[in-house]
Amino acid sequence: MPELRRDPVTGRWVIFSTERSRRPADFATEKEEPLVASCPFCAGHEAQTPPEIYAVREPASAPNGPGWRVRVVPNKFPALRIEGDLDKQGEGLYDKMNGVGAHEVFVEGGEHATTITAIPGSIFRETVHAYRARLADLKNDRRLAYGLVFKNVGRRAGASIAHNHSQLIATPVVPITVRQEIAGARQFFEYRGRCIYCDILRQERASRARIVLETDAFAAVVPYAARFPFETWVVPTRHVSHFEDASAAELDAFAETVLVVLGRLERSLGSPPYNLAIHTAPFVDAPLDHYHWHLEIMPRVTETAGFEWGSGFYINPVLPEDAAKFLSNGTR
Amino acid sequence: MPELRRDPVTGRWVIFSTERSRRPADFATEKEEPLVASCPFCAGHEAQTPPEIYAVREPASAPNGPGWRVRVVPNKFPALRIEGDLDKQGEGLYDKMNGVGAHEVFVEGGEHATTITAIPGSIFRETVHAYRARLADLKNDRRLAYGLVFKNVGRRAGASIAHNHSQLIATPVVPITVRQEIAGARQFFEYRGRCIYCDILRQERASRARIVLETDAFAAVVPYAARFPFETWVVPTRHVSHFEDASAAELDAFAETVLVVLGRLERSLGSPPYNLAIHTAPFVDAPLDHYHWHLEIMPRVTETAGFEWGSGFYINPVLPEDAAKFLSNGTR
Repeated sequence: MPELRRDPVTGRWVIFSTERSRRPADFATEKEEPLVASCPFCAGHEAQTPPEIYAVREPASAPNGPGWRVRVVPNKFPALRIEGDLDKQGEGLYDKMNGVGAHEVFVEGGEHATTITAIPGSIFRETVHAYRARLADLKNDRRLAYGLVFKNVGRRAGASIAHNHSQLIATPVVPITVRQEIAGARQFFEYRGRCIYCDILRQERASRARIVLETDAFAAVVPYAARFPFETWVVPTRHVSHFEDASAAELDAFAETVLVVLGRLERSLGSPPYNLAIHTAPFVDAPLDHYHWHLEIMPRVTETAGFEWGSGFYINPVLPEDAAKFLSNGTR
Repeated sequence: MPELRRDPVTGRWVIFSTERSRRPADFATEKEEPLVASCPFCAGHEAQTPPEIYAVREPASAPNGPGWRVRVVPNKFPALRIEGDLDKQGEGLYDKMNGVGAHEVFVEGGEHATTITAIPGSIFRETVHAYRARLADLKNDRRLAYGLVFKNVGRRAGASIAHNHSQLIATPVVPITVRQEIAGARQFFEYRGRCIYCDILRQERASRARIVLETDAFAAVVPYAARFPFETWVVPTRHVSHFEDASAAELDAFAETVLVVLGRLERSLGSPPYNLAIHTAPFVDAPLDHYHWHLEIMPRVTETAGFEWGSGFYINPVLPEDAAKFLSNGTR
């Protein structure tokens, strides 16, 4: 069973997942390895993954065989496990709990494609609907406080399997980054009575300097204080705190916007490794006036180093206005 | 002039340093490049760096020529610049300031060695004394709030020059990671009336499960909630909040402890890339009862991915007790 430990100074939690572990000495030889040859995510290889939790399938097809377009399975090497009761304990100064949670993989299409823009857009649209379905389901589990949906593309961005996929990790505590973001947004709301993300959207739409792409339902924008070159956020126009409360039409528009932005990143930057993560409100919160779900896309074209790790300061060599202009491709 | 921008939600600052910039399109082709052939840090190449600010030299030698063991020079591509007054401005919702600060490089020995353990230990000892001298000097500059000393080793850890060196960046605001760490330590002090780091040392020395190395003046310990495999902190026994207030004898003992730990990391893990950073109290604070300077060493043997970036949660496949046992080499 994985174990969660809390840093007593900062309150940051760490998951110790020793089942994913190699022996300490194995780290000595870690090198860039080629991504796996026989792909467990390809259609026809369904037996290589744990049984599916959810799938978008042809009407007549049976579970765990071919005929699917999106398939959600438990991670074979889960960071957290769904079985068991939460057991919180102290250890002198320290706090720990057992690693109860969920770790699911969304396989995007049975075809062995390594970029989501290379397959029909309908597959990512159905994946986004699957995110919502899984979040809404996990939210019913009272042991779980938060669900984070994310995607790692490219080995330098932490991907170990190249076949298109996303992941969802549901945790028994609200992650520190989420708590800090929501605390900042709450402080603004208390002071001004408005959602800070709604205000950001208003200012960005007026200035247009950092807009990458805009539709009625979404804006893709390079944030004013972007940590990374070409970092882009996709923000819904309508104020909703929880991703799982977005409408079906919004999810469709979201998938379309994200695909356009990713396509531009790939064409402009030569398919860089990237991470994306949906920032949404905790399961345990009712709808919040002060928080606004959104997606953050982080291309990994620079390395984070000692300064960033030691300070939380970032050094970004590309101004957001220049990045937005480059990614907007003359569309604005 | 670089620009500092503040994320309006989290309060995190980002340095936009466009003089370090390539054009946006240049990111498209970024690949692993070999580290520079003609090394600007080698003895005899002093003219390839800006003039020295500080040096440990042979008595008769002239500045900016050979005869030095440690040489501190301004970074040729500084993230922040020392000239000019601080100019803080709003931009609608947002806050920015000009990039006043310091960015210095500590060249460790004139010999082209790429690991600090391969050259005489006296050079790192003199470098550590140089850290203190430079911090004490920059502290007199009222525009500066914080000085971060760090070291990047290996390209994956963000190093662009292989020759042994450290860096110091002094910033006009206190970095968010430092503020959060000090706030957490202050909260503990308010509740218990003790320094949390002193308490951690006491518990670690009693349990011994995570001790890597111990002397009278320092303990090297794998923290209870280590983010990374083999992450190691070097913590002084004596409670001092500011690194620059350590005694000369403590600095000597510190250098020696760090060299032993780095040597073990290198031998055990095959010279992995790593970052290290000194965590110390802000320039602007008087000595603090609730904060305790220390060093954090972070080997970069795993990738951080979307989950870590989106949540601030870390997944660590190696238990701190196993890492400490591995690094203690049977010495405990």
